[in-house]
Amino acid sequence: MPVKTRFPAPPTPLMPTYRNVAILGVGLIGGSIGLALRQRGLAGEVVGIGRRQASLDKALAHGAVDRATTDLAEGAAAAEVVVVATPVDSVVEDVCRAVAAAPSTAWVTDVGSAKAAICGQVETRLADAAKRFVGSHPLAGDHRCGPENASASLLTGKTVVVTPYETTPTALAKRAAEFWQALGASVTTMSPAQHDQALAATSHLPHLVASALAASTPVEWLPLAASGWADTTRLAAADPALWTQIFAQNQADVLESLDRFIEQLKQLQTALVDQRWSQIQDQLQQAKRMRDALGN
Amino acid sequence: MPVKTRFPAPPTPLMPTYRNVAILGVGLIGGSIGLALRQRGLAGEVVGIGRRQASLDKALAHGAVDRATTDLAEGAAAAEVVVVATPVDSVVEDVCRAVAAAPSTAWVTDVGSAKAAICGQVETRLADAAKRFVGSHPLAGDHRCGPENASASLLTGKTVVVTPYETTPTALAKRAAEFWQALGASVTTMSPAQHDQALAATSHLPHLVASALAASTPVEWLPLAASGWADTTRLAAADPALWTQIFAQNQADVLESLDRFIEQLKQLQTALVDQRWSQIQDQLQQAKRMRDALGN
Repeated sequence: MPVKTRFPAPPTPLMPTYRNVAILGVGLIGGSIGLALRQRGLAGEVVGIGRRQASLDKALAHGAVDRATTDLAEGAAAAEVVVVATPVDSVVEDVCRAVAAAPSTAWVTDVGSAKAAICGQVETRLADAAKRFVGSHPLAGDHRCGPENASASLLTGKTVVVTPYETTPTALAKRAAEFWQALGASVTTMSPAQHDQALAATSHLPHLVASALAASTPVEWLPLAASGWADTTRLAAADPALWTQIFAQNQADVLESLDRFIEQLKQLQTALVDQRWSQIQDQLQQAKRMRDALGN
Repeated sequence: MPVKTRFPAPPTPLMPTYRNVAILGVGLIGGSIGLALRQRGLAGEVVGIGRRQASLDKALAHGAVDRATTDLAEGAAAAEVVVVATPVDSVVEDVCRAVAAAPSTAWVTDVGSAKAAICGQVETRLADAAKRFVGSHPLAGDHRCGPENASASLLTGKTVVVTPYETTPTALAKRAAEFWQALGASVTTMSPAQHDQALAATSHLPHLVASALAASTPVEWLPLAASGWADTTRLAAADPALWTQIFAQNQADVLESLDRFIEQLKQLQTALVDQRWSQIQDQLQQAKRMRDALGN
C-alpha cells in the first residue's frame, strides 16, 4: 500500500513529544486528534490507518495526518501510541489488533463512549491488557461525522475520561493523561464501570430523550418549533447507527437512568393532573438549580 | 405620576407607522418590542406602563421606551395600540384594564404563551372583545428576564402566532399581523385552541422534559456533563414561576403531549430491555429525520 503525504506538517518543535502516533479510524474524533497533534507540533509523524482509502484521502486532504495506509501492520510499525477511534462495536477487535501490530513498547488507547464492555473484553482477550491498553473517552463531539469536519480545537478545554484497570501501572495511566492534556483537554480518571454509570446520565440518556422528543412531535406542528425545541432535540441529529451501538454497550446503566427519568416525568404528570402547582414550581426550581450549576 | 424621558428617541421617519404605542409590562419581551419600535422609527412615542418604578427606570435606562408611568389611564390615554406583556396569569385582567383605559379606536394585543384560556376569558369579560383584542404569541424569548436583557432584534426573523376569534373583523387581524411584521417577525394565524395544542408539543413539553432531565441527573455526575447535556437541559434555566403559570394555563394539551412522549420513551425502554437494536435504530432514524427537517 502506498504511503502518502499531501500536506507538509507544520514546523515541529526540536523535540516533538511523540516520535510517531498512529490513529486507527480517522473520522471526526480521530481526525481532530490528528489535526491537534500536527498543529501543536506534538508528533514527529501522525499516521492514519483506515479501512477505506476514500476516508483516508479525506483525512490527508484535511491535513489530519502526515501519511495514511490501509495496512495496520505497516501503519503501526513505528508507533509509540496508537489511538483507536473506530465505531464502538469495532473497538475491542481493533484494540487487540493494534496491540499485536505495534511495537511492544507502544501503548494503545481508544475513544469509545461506553467503557466497561470495551475494557472488560480487551482484558479477557489480551493477557497483558493492563500493560498495553488504557481506555479513554473524550467528552467532545459533534453531530457531524467524518474527517472533513475534524477540528484541531475539538478537544480544547474539554474533559477526557481515562479509565485504567485496577492493575494498570501508574506510569501508563499517567502517560495516557499526559497525552490528552497535551491536546488541550483536562483529564478525569475513573473506573470503566463508574464512567458508564456517569455517562448514562449525562450523555446517553439525553440522547435518548432528545430522540424521543423529536419523534413524538406531530409533524404538522414542526413549523412552530423555535429555539427551545431546537436545543432540546439537537442530539437527535446524531448518527442513529453509532448511538444504537452505544446504547447496546451500556444497556443496563442507560435503563437505570431512563427509569429515574420516567419516574421524574410521572411525578410531574401526576402533579399536573392534580393541579399541584406549587409542587411543579418546586420541581422546576430544583431543575433550574442543577442547570444553573453548569452555566451557559 | 411624573413622566420621564431619559433617552431621546432615534430620529423617526417623517411619518411613523404608529403615533403612540403603549406597552404594559416592560420586561424582556415588552422591552424588546419597545426597543424595536424605537430603533425602527415605527412609533412617534413608546410609553412603558408598569407596576414597579424600578423596572420602568431600567426600561428607560435601556432605551426601551420614550416615557414611563405606573398610571395605566395616563399611559394608555393616547395609545393606538396597547401591547400587554405581563406574566400569563395577569394578562386577562391587564387586557381588560387596557381596553377600558385606551381610546375606543385603539386595539390591544398580548404576548402570552398560552392562548385559549386568555382569549376565552377576555371574550367572557368584554362584550366587544373581538373588536378590541387580538391574542398574539411571539415565539421568541430568552431564559434571562428583565428589560436590561431586552434586544431590538429579539423578534427579527422569528414567528409570531396571531390568534383571532372567529368573529374578529378581518381588518383587525390584519392590523395585528402588520404590527408584528413591522418589527421583523413573520406571522402565522391560527385559533387559540390550535395554538395551544401546537405549542404544547413544540415548547411546553420540551420545557417539562428539559427540567425533568436536569432534575433526574445525579449531582455527583454533573462535572461530566458536556454540550449534549447542556443543550438538552437548557430550557430548565427558565423562570420556574412563569413556566408553572404556562403549564397551568395549558394543562390539558401539555398532558396530552406528555402522554405521547412517555409512550415513545416506553417503546424505547422495552426495545432496550429486549435488545431489539434494529427497532431502536429505526426510532432514532425517525427522530433524526424530524430534527434534520428543522435545520441547525
